[in-house]
Amino acid sequence: MITLTSDFGLKDPYVAEMKGVILTIHPKATVVDITHEVKKFDVRMAAFILAAAVPYFPDGTVHVAVVDPEVGSRRRAILIETKKSVFAGPDNGVLIFAAQNQGIEHIYQLTNANFMLPKISWTFHGRDIFAPAAAHLERGVQPAEFGPEIKEAVNPAFAKIKLIGSSVIGEVMHIDSFGNIITNITETDLAQNDAKTVQTELTGISLKLALGKTYAEAKPKEPIALVGSQGFLEIALNQGNAAEKLHAKAGDKIVFTVA
Amino acid sequence: MITLTSDFGLKDPYVAEMKGVILTIHPKATVVDITHEVKKFDVRMAAFILAAAVPYFPDGTVHVAVVDPEVGSRRRAILIETKKSVFAGPDNGVLIFAAQNQGIEHIYQLTNANFMLPKISWTFHGRDIFAPAAAHLERGVQPAEFGPEIKEAVNPAFAKIKLIGSSVIGEVMHIDSFGNIITNITETDLAQNDAKTVQTELTGISLKLALGKTYAEAKPKEPIALVGSQGFLEIALNQGNAAEKLHAKAGDKIVFTVA
Amino acid sequence: MITLTSDFGLKDPYVAEMKGVILTIHPKATVVDITHEVKKFDVRMAAFILAAAVPYFPDGTVHVAVVDPEVGSRRRAILIETKKSVFAGPDNGVLIFAAQNQGIEHIYQLTNANFMLPKISWTFHGRDIFAPAAAHLERGVQPAEFGPEIKEAVNPAFAKIKLIGSSVIGEVMHIDSFGNIITNITETDLAQNDAKTVQTELTGISLKLALGKTYAEAKPKEPIALVGSQGFLEIALNQGNAAEKLHAKAGDKIVFTVA
Repeated sequence: MITLTSDFGLKDPYVAEMKGVILTIHPKATVVDITHEVKKFDVRMAAFILAAAVPYFPDGTVHVAVVDPEVGSRRRAILIETKKSVFAGPDNGVLIFAAQNQGIEHIYQLTNANFMLPKISWTFHGRDIFAPAAAHLERGVQPAEFGPEIKEAVNPAFAKIKLIGSSVIGEVMHIDSFGNIITNITETDLAQNDAKTVQTELTGISLKLALGKTYAEAKPKEPIALVGSQGFLEIALNQGNAAEKLHAKAGDKIVFTVA
Repeated sequence: MITLTSDFGLKDPYVAEMKGVILTIHPKATVVDITHEVKKFDVRMAAFILAAAVPYFPDGTVHVAVVDPEVGSRRRAILIETKKSVFAGPDNGVLIFAAQNQGIEHIYQLTNANFMLPKISWTFHGRDIFAPAAAHLERGVQPAEFGPEIKEAVNPAFAKIKLIGSSVIGEVMHIDSFGNIITNITETDLAQNDAKTVQTELTGISLKLALGKTYAEAKPKEPIALVGSQGFLEIALNQGNAAEKLHAKAGDKIVFTVA
Repeated sequence: MITLTSDFGLKDPYVAEMKGVILTIHPKATVVDITHEVKKFDVRMAAFILAAAVPYFPDGTVHVAVVDPEVGSRRRAILIETKKSVFAGPDNGVLIFAAQNQGIEHIYQLTNANFMLPKISWTFHGRDIFAPAAAHLERGVQPAEFGPEIKEAVNPAFAKIKLIGSSVIGEVMHIDSFGNIITNITETDLAQNDAKTVQTELTGISLKLALGKTYAEAKPKEPIALVGSQGFLEIALNQGNAAEKLHAKAGDKIVFTVA
């Protein structure tokens, strides 16, 4: 199985071209779209959506993510092999947030031209490099055959949680359509699962929040912290827009301290 | 074969998570999207789109529809078994309009936790309950194994046609992008197929309409009643917007009397 | 494999109905969407997107394209058999631009009712005629069985390049979201591949342009001609909007003269 995530939209032929390339190399591949509606060049948003969806796919799935503002420059093309899956995409952080949740085993630079299209365009590596890589992985080529192993991939701030004492320092990944403030912090990052409140610092505001399970546990218009259905800690306002009230946006630093 | 209908949109990871869950349980399933662009929480619109599409799918298809404004409350999760298909979704009317066109045989409450994900979120039963149900149905689990049979499901006004003498009383289901007023009445609900005109009551307006086969049969800007390509009786304005002219909207009561 | 291209959008049940019809006739078909977001009735845009995507699909693929402003009139339904694929759709030019790039071998009028749905609506031949045709082709029915061979299909201006001496006369097919002016001229239409500049006539403006490989070869805000990732000659403005600067729109005549 191969999943695709991109900022290509569904109006242009780009996504279909990737699928055509995959199905030409490996006609029996099952290809599933995660989303192609990532905001143009928004690596953080793509990383978040990929990390939310990946846990629901079977072991052995190949995940391709192409949000690639530096295509045509010297940024590397990489494969990340985890305990469960292989990820293919540009080395700009789009893959690593999802991959590290599965336990990264190896990272390879994608250099072997045998597994690319014969002609590589300057602007569309999704079709010319990453789609063929996914198809060849799916038909059994080993990750190590695609190029040299490398020690490190680009690791943006949003993929790093800091734990300091009983504090977790993370970042706002996404404001959803309800105004919920979704962070990069998972349930397991919060040391004490039995905590009932968390002290929160966000955009210069310090708040003591109830740590609940549902929006309805908070009074109307009152903020609450909870682990949302995508598995990440979020701040929500019961019947209101938390991001507006707290002036939060993607990229903001956030600190939770279990008290 | 499994179809999916929802109001989740294609920007978020939700639809992909449902597909990942299905393909983890039953890797050979064929999953077809009906639409994910239903207006948020618009049960009627989803019911209409599902009912329009279902007749074109093979017998034995499992149809999942998740427009679920009451998720997390006590509304039931159900399966509806018809002569041709099985439907899975919340018990709010989203399934029943399509299901009754095929002849409902049994309705079951979906309670058996063996066929759900281990952890059920408060807000995303599409992924945690309905997608696994569809996958298990597709791999051969019988509907009766999912929970107790129930006598009745929620049956909203839009799923009920009243026949009184030569009158059919129905509801406006949908205004399409051309302004055509599409009802919940099918060709077979109109007793006399050889009728050439119908008396119509809608939004306080009484109109005698030609009953035609194509928009072009009416004079320009003149309304006509016809059975559209989706199988439902509609009122259209040749080269114009019928909903604007007649001030009609989804949910309006409509009466046709074959004269 | 079957591809689908249309202006139906993804909100309505139309695309799903086509897929249901295909999978009812041929349950093992792989169906891939090229796009359904073509601008309503924009035959040129659909022809362009189809021609861009088709080269990436395997030989033997059946391509269905339904942008059909004259549905219900006397316009013909056709199949085009090329050296590599079969195309099905209305005879309005939507297929021919992609088909001729593969070498057209035969054109058939689609008239055999055995390969259509039993009831043909006036407005939805995508579901009632073209989807069943694709499914029957995919299960092995030969193109010649669908109806009589015809000599010519509708061949709109955008599907015709004129070569006069060292000049190529074409048309603007598409303005992409960056304002790049994409033409119907391919690399092989330009006689001399080693040319470094081209004289260009467009919307009454005459320009000598560098013929480059990447946008970055031009100075900022300066136009350049290059073959884009979709295989067509385009005029781009490095870090700017070429269509705005040159007042170009789809359908404009364009002349390139290799100097």
